[in-house]
Amino acid sequence: MYKLDIDTPALLLDVDLLQKNLDRMAAWAAEAGVGVRPHFKVHRTPEISKLQLEAGAVGVTVAKVSEAEVAVEHGLGEVLIANEICGKQKIERLVQLCRRQPVMSYVDCHDALDDLEAAAEAHRVVLDLLPDVDVGMNRCGAPAEEAVELAVRIHESPHLSLRGIGGYEGHLGAQEPGEGKTAAITHDLHPLRVVVERLQEAGIPVPIVTAASSGTFRETAGQGWVTEVQPGTYALGDLLYNKGGCGSDYAMTVLATVMSRAGGRVITDAGMKALHPRFGGHIVKDYPQLALRGLAAEHGIWDAEDTCSLRVGDKVEILPDYADGTINLHLCWELTQAGSAVGRWDIVGHGASK
Amino acid sequence: MYKLDIDTPALLLDVDLLQKNLDRMAAWAAEAGVGVRPHFKVHRTPEISKLQLEAGAVGVTVAKVSEAEVAVEHGLGEVLIANEICGKQKIERLVQLCRRQPVMSYVDCHDALDDLEAAAEAHRVVLDLLPDVDVGMNRCGAPAEEAVELAVRIHESPHLSLRGIGGYEGHLGAQEPGEGKTAAITHDLHPLRVVVERLQEAGIPVPIVTAASSGTFRETAGQGWVTEVQPGTYALGDLLYNKGGCGSDYAMTVLATVMSRAGGRVITDAGMKALHPRFGGHIVKDYPQLALRGLAAEHGIWDAEDTCSLRVGDKVEILPDYADGTINLHLCWELTQAGSAVGRWDIVGHGASK
Repeated sequence: MYKLDIDTPALLLDVDLLQKNLDRMAAWAAEAGVGVRPHFKVHRTPEISKLQLEAGAVGVTVAKVSEAEVAVEHGLGEVLIANEICGKQKIERLVQLCRRQPVMSYVDCHDALDDLEAAAEAHRVVLDLLPDVDVGMNRCGAPAEEAVELAVRIHESPHLSLRGIGGYEGHLGAQEPGEGKTAAITHDLHPLRVVVERLQEAGIPVPIVTAASSGTFRETAGQGWVTEVQPGTYALGDLLYNKGGCGSDYAMTVLATVMSRAGGRVITDAGMKALHPRFGGHIVKDYPQLALRGLAAEHGIWDAEDTCSLRVGDKVEILPDYADGTINLHLCWELTQAGSAVGRWDIVGHGASK
Repeated sequence: MYKLDIDTPALLLDVDLLQKNLDRMAAWAAEAGVGVRPHFKVHRTPEISKLQLEAGAVGVTVAKVSEAEVAVEHGLGEVLIANEICGKQKIERLVQLCRRQPVMSYVDCHDALDDLEAAAEAHRVVLDLLPDVDVGMNRCGAPAEEAVELAVRIHESPHLSLRGIGGYEGHLGAQEPGEGKTAAITHDLHPLRVVVERLQEAGIPVPIVTAASSGTFRETAGQGWVTEVQPGTYALGDLLYNKGGCGSDYAMTVLATVMSRAGGRVITDAGMKALHPRFGGHIVKDYPQLALRGLAAEHGIWDAEDTCSLRVGDKVEILPDYADGTINLHLCWELTQAGSAVGRWDIVGHGASK
């Protein structure tokens, strides 16, 4: 079957370009001397994680306990939940999961650490933790001083194990690469470096120092003291992270059908339920003259000259600006190779947001 | 179980408030003398459609063939696809579905009508169609003249049946109610009225004249010549359509856990994968002093005074600004009643976007 015979809207994945993206990252990591722990949250697809592990990934990163459950279920190697686990139900699920396989997670305050330590003690498991340091994103993460305190507490607790330190400079991910970006990353990562040095001075081992995304992995690995990076989007490619210098091929597109050509417009059947609306800059492949006027729930509205050759019923491929949010809207990948439809992968972690 | 013991992020539905919203709409429709064909695309939940039909709805509206398939499968009455059906695969699915149960759909151009008529003839079914008239939204929809031509063609074709005329004044849905809004709706609906009058003058019956959403149903029904309206969000309530005068109770909330309280911020575990990011104005129930700074994929970031009593692990309920897009991110409803968790409804139409 030709890929254009796939019903729409559909999430297409060019398996050759996917492999090219994975090979490029593997070659870079070998040269940079840094571990790659690819983020599962972007694709939530065990088949992609397995290809990433075959390409040399040291394990997987996830954002939620429910994603960690999928990763453990599918044997995707060593799992890091790069996020704070809080609340009775969530900690209970983490503890139960750790009975099957040790899973690492972040912590950024003493209150949460109290709860995690109490649960570990009550359930007789050892929880693997990494203090999360705020490196200027102003989201989660502790200031350096508090992160050192948390690390010392974890190190000294019989119920907890200090596996390392994490941070996330996501606020710099879409900045175009260059001296300014490198300097900003070096500056903002300073609190993470301070924590690492303080702990090493105190004789506390810090095996893992983890940070970065597909928008910052080169500059962050270039610091020299980060042990691993967490890119995710690099496997698929999107406009947002390529703007930040990721340099991936666009392995992922959204296939859509032209459903109306009224009044100088091209209307496609891929709207906010097929393309993430946040960053707003999607591009129609092979039709760069189409300008996105907006997305409605089920409609993409593009300004087009009347001379545009697209007719009702024609299909177009759209390059999404934000892979993570767009994949989150779909249940499966339609696999393509050299213009043919060659299979399907279920996004088995779809909806694993708890 | 108390509703606050539900793991997060979760989509809560207060069943008493849901019923109150349905009863309020039913009472209004009886008084207005207009049919209500509630939109299934908003909730994609057969249980909710069944309650809507029990409350007197004349059938259901959907936006996609795949939603129509779910509606037919679950016996949700007479189905209108208020959208253009284009392309070989989509028309094939529509025809197959119509073999099981007649389903109405829109058409807005001669090219699409050619394809629909050819498919109906080839498959020996009669397709029920309504020309879609652009009433100023500048999305899909034909100008009045072309819509009249389409209607005449449908009326005269042995393979097609003219069921009526549709339009959608969605561009006015969020405008605050008042004389200005009523006048704008009257003005913009003029092309739809013209089509109805032309066809009646030609002796062509137009049984259904359908339009409106939860943001415009009162003003549009007030025109006097619209036979039915298509509100959807009214059943759940959201900030966007209540701004437009819908007047629903907030039966739907997103339950989230506070996962970090660093630096004067409250971080919740409901981000862009649990709350739709488009309209951006979500509110935390009982904590109006929290101001949304932004959503990341898995994080809600709220500005809060240090005096804010929320602690890590606490739960909050968030009023979404946009029900349709938010529900689209979840797999099920957690049903609540008087503060207790009383069951779960799967959103069985989840992902039915083709």
